[in-house]
Amino acid sequence: MRQWQNDGMSLPSVAVLGGTGQQGRGIAQRLALAGFPIVVGSRDPDRAAAAIGEWPASVPAVTSATYGDAIAPSDVVVLAVPFDSVDAILEQHQQSFRQQALVVEITVPLNFANKTVTLSAVAEGSASEHIRARLPAHVRLAATFKTVPAHLLGDVDRTLDCDEFVCGDSEEARAGARDLVQAVPGLRAIDVGALSRARSIEHLTLLAVGINRRHKTHDARFRIVGL
Amino acid sequence: MRQWQNDGMSLPSVAVLGGTGQQGRGIAQRLALAGFPIVVGSRDPDRAAAAIGEWPASVPAVTSATYGDAIAPSDVVVLAVPFDSVDAILEQHQQSFRQQALVVEITVPLNFANKTVTLSAVAEGSASEHIRARLPAHVRLAATFKTVPAHLLGDVDRTLDCDEFVCGDSEEARAGARDLVQAVPGLRAIDVGALSRARSIEHLTLLAVGINRRHKTHDARFRIVGL
Repeated sequence: MRQWQNDGMSLPSVAVLGGTGQQGRGIAQRLALAGFPIVVGSRDPDRAAAAIGEWPASVPAVTSATYGDAIAPSDVVVLAVPFDSVDAILEQHQQSFRQQALVVEITVPLNFANKTVTLSAVAEGSASEHIRARLPAHVRLAATFKTVPAHLLGDVDRTLDCDEFVCGDSEEARAGARDLVQAVPGLRAIDVGALSRARSIEHLTLLAVGINRRHKTHDARFRIVGL
Repeated sequence: MRQWQNDGMSLPSVAVLGGTGQQGRGIAQRLALAGFPIVVGSRDPDRAAAAIGEWPASVPAVTSATYGDAIAPSDVVVLAVPFDSVDAILEQHQQSFRQQALVVEITVPLNFANKTVTLSAVAEGSASEHIRARLPAHVRLAATFKTVPAHLLGDVDRTLDCDEFVCGDSEEARAGARDLVQAVPGLRAIDVGALSRARSIEHLTLLAVGINRRHKTHDARFRIVGL
């Protein structure tokens, strides 16, 4: 997968589950602009199609399908559904994933119930590890797009000037996720290693949300200095 | 304390416990260069004095004292001793702190025992909260200097071009810590709020260590984009 951008071959097909939601929309649009064939997976494909019809004219054509029909043919499956919807979807579609499919998960289990935003307790240590435990063994998992603000990703005319962190259960999974990140103008992928590093990445998101509230902005994001 | 840098009054006195160690040395030197009166608190003040004698000639005079003698007269006490030494020192010196003293703690309980660096489990949730539970009620606590690499802080000719995160148990504690951070050339203080935010800051440090290992550098540090 590492050679996606370099070998002149066709780009992998990408399903974005929840691709019309706040998180997924920007990813679907950005990857479509980068040339990836995109299908949005949705509980309601007709409604998704209507939403896609409202996207900026500059975004290439994107189709919609049920979750199962989106997952089945895709090389990459981006999980952009809310964290509390993931379990049911994965349970239902265990058999739908292609052999060696790459799953990319982007969730952060933020809890806004109290005055201070926190991370919900996740027994496995992070949302990424929780999801790994519910995926079939034959798919690989990477986590990324957890820290860049959704509204900036969704502003497709805007060049992002920050870093996005990638971790995963294998070198191949991380390489595939890095290629997606680097396809977004101005976004640099930082490989931070094993999937358990998602614990720290999710804390970065929490910190950014806290910074946004305290400093009355929505744009806080990260750049690693010294690389 | 907010007006330290602005009111033309004398700067607060700062004790740096462990101020000849890897973490503390750079802080002591940088704050001395910024004009703060510095005393290094040490188990062995004579050995500390000898170490200070080797510091760059550009660094103004710094004295040394026992922990108790360093703490007693100081407006600010920086805890730059290893995390596993903190409990004993605080237990012994409960009565030494000035009324309304500001304690600034900089520790991250990193565990290098396994191949993958992790954070040691701390019952209170973070090193900062652990320390808060062991300080007398009449001192205030802020946490900072947790993410900027020690060797860069210790290279006093180098202008740092990154951010440092500050959290604390009160607005006053955070303001005092921000003033210390901003006294270091090129370092911007980012106030992230309540002391429990140290949980996320300590994860940032862990992530930076992981990035350093993976990318074969020692310089990884953070900049918040969008502020």
